[in-house]
Amino acid sequence: MPEPSIPGLFVILATMLVAAKLLGELAERIGQPAVLGELIAGVILGGSVLGVVPTEGAAGEVVHVFAELGVVLLLFEIGLETDLREMFRVGPASLSVASVGVMLPFVLGFLYWAYVPHAAGGGATDLTTAAIFVGATLTATSVGITARVLSDLQQMSSPEARIIIGAAVIDDVLGLVSLAPSGVLRIFAVAVGFLVVAVLLGRFLAPHLFDLVVRMRVRYVLLVFAIAFALGLAALAALAGSALIIGAFAAGLILSGTNQFDTIEREVRPVASIFAPIFFVSVGASVNLDLLDPTREGAAGLLGVAAILTLLAIAGKLVAGWAAPWLRFRRLVVGVGMVPRGEVGLIFADIGRRAGILNEAVFGAILLMVMATTFVAPPALKALFGSPSPADR
Amino acid sequence: MPEPSIPGLFVILATMLVAAKLLGELAERIGQPAVLGELIAGVILGGSVLGVVPTEGAAGEVVHVFAELGVVLLLFEIGLETDLREMFRVGPASLSVASVGVMLPFVLGFLYWAYVPHAAGGGATDLTTAAIFVGATLTATSVGITARVLSDLQQMSSPEARIIIGAAVIDDVLGLVSLAPSGVLRIFAVAVGFLVVAVLLGRFLAPHLFDLVVRMRVRYVLLVFAIAFALGLAALAALAGSALIIGAFAAGLILSGTNQFDTIEREVRPVASIFAPIFFVSVGASVNLDLLDPTREGAAGLLGVAAILTLLAIAGKLVAGWAAPWLRFRRLVVGVGMVPRGEVGLIFADIGRRAGILNEAVFGAILLMVMATTFVAPPALKALFGSPSPADR
Repeated sequence: MPEPSIPGLFVILATMLVAAKLLGELAERIGQPAVLGELIAGVILGGSVLGVVPTEGAAGEVVHVFAELGVVLLLFEIGLETDLREMFRVGPASLSVASVGVMLPFVLGFLYWAYVPHAAGGGATDLTTAAIFVGATLTATSVGITARVLSDLQQMSSPEARIIIGAAVIDDVLGLVSLAPSGVLRIFAVAVGFLVVAVLLGRFLAPHLFDLVVRMRVRYVLLVFAIAFALGLAALAALAGSALIIGAFAAGLILSGTNQFDTIEREVRPVASIFAPIFFVSVGASVNLDLLDPTREGAAGLLGVAAILTLLAIAGKLVAGWAAPWLRFRRLVVGVGMVPRGEVGLIFADIGRRAGILNEAVFGAILLMVMATTFVAPPALKALFGSPSPADR
Repeated sequence: MPEPSIPGLFVILATMLVAAKLLGELAERIGQPAVLGELIAGVILGGSVLGVVPTEGAAGEVVHVFAELGVVLLLFEIGLETDLREMFRVGPASLSVASVGVMLPFVLGFLYWAYVPHAAGGGATDLTTAAIFVGATLTATSVGITARVLSDLQQMSSPEARIIIGAAVIDDVLGLVSLAPSGVLRIFAVAVGFLVVAVLLGRFLAPHLFDLVVRMRVRYVLLVFAIAFALGLAALAALAGSALIIGAFAAGLILSGTNQFDTIEREVRPVASIFAPIFFVSVGASVNLDLLDPTREGAAGLLGVAAILTLLAIAGKLVAGWAAPWLRFRRLVVGVGMVPRGEVGLIFADIGRRAGILNEAVFGAILLMVMATTFVAPPALKALFGSPSPADR
């Protein structure tokens, strides 16, 4: 394996960053979330079209490490933004909506994959494991996408928006603990155990540690310790048999309880913003466009599977709006607000693909589902918020 | 070569970051600049002691790429902080001090290496090239270290401080253009040409480009474009036959002329603060402590060479204080303020080592020189600023 040329690598990274932002901007300009543009940038730069993103050799390794850092820092940031107390305070409504919104799509996806004969096949040695993965990719609402859409519509202070955000945060946690490199109950228990132990211990110890760190005088010492903490906990989670992202998310939850939380969050964001696009572009680059070729054997089947997954993903979340009957709010708005899948679903699909549990065709179908739900929600939300309808219908 | 384990790499990076900050803090607490602590952290984590920093295989490549990104972002940041107009305004005094302070150490170092027989040997196939490299490592005052020391002493607004900072910035430029992968006049011309063309073109075009970029709405678009710009220009400089850091410094100079300069600088700093310690720790890790073993053959010679280089480095800068006789200021304070060598000297030495121009023994002697000048200046400055002496002596 030849030593990667540093100038060559710099050009690749710069191209990935610029393409992500340009297509992200284009997506936003036509009323879509930026993450959609970053995925499409990846598809264009990937092996199916331009072949700019390296997948092999030392250059491929470096890009892979950057992408992993991107997803770890993203989950760290989401964890940081998750206020544990606020999470409990948003109350039974969000929890109820979140629970139904996670369980229903999971069960629908699992049942479809495990019991309905379909063209794409399991792809895994074990159909049940594959079905758990497929179900899991349908669970988590994209907090980032949903919050961005609501804020673009200037609806962040509406009761529906508060319920949606609360539920989306909760279902991120529910979704995250539902998966790890291989989706069995032991792994589930390890993830839950790791999160609970790490967060309980960490919330007790970290404030003392960071009260010491903040007394240090060297430049950006808080930021550097926070990122080292996230990397360390991510590695620990992986070594304990769970996933890197579980550790990173736990690190965020833990540090959100420190007195230096504001500084850490403010300084982590620009760092995450450099790595995260590399992840989304890499995910997009791994899409094999040949799968969509209509003349290819099985193409119709793949598109059919993607369509069914999308319908299940939407149906499961729409019903969740009716999960809190004791409160008056626009249930359809909440349901639609929960529809977009994003980061977490892609992460699960990517883990499944790398572990050989989901084959390329299934990965493609899931990616189409994520794209479709992400495409569908913003215009629908816009239309619903625009219509002067009664508060409860 | 086995695929590097991501958790393992995360642990290595976290360890390097934490060690850099802890030893940087320790250095500052005993009145020394943090960069010294980061170098020592590298020595401890390196192959001579703990062997934590990988130098080979895929993990070594990833750490190497991170270190390169660190130095590129550092020079980008220094370029950003360099106001071209301010540089001309600080006037003839700074320029005169800088010119003498660059030329004298360079000439002293060159003559010593090329004409005085010494124990450490050339190490290169070509003694003249090696002598140019040795001279170049003696030229550039560390802006970061000097500014940090002056601000710690609350002397940033003194006339001496203004002259020192102006001269240190100028001699960074003079030092930077004096070297590239191999130190010959053609390379010098390429570096100067690249800097002049890139900065002239860039200062004209970049403001228009970034006025367009700032109209984009996606998150951190300015930061991402700025970093992509720095990576791109660094790669371009390297492909044009100059060095990555010349391009990165040019990118900083260019973007310091944009209207979005403040935002870019504020957001680049946290990103650079994550990568830069990896560079200094890597440099420290490459020190072979065996060279200092007094029982080893040639050890006395190496220490002697290091001592002579240190004396030349100090003498060349001290005299520079007398280079602007038409102005009244404390000449010894300015001379001492110019003494600390840092980032740029280490970068040169590292390039020379990687290119096989400087052997390990010479690299070790230069590192000792950088450490010694860095050690010597802060207490000396403290003593001089503390003493109530006449303005011109």
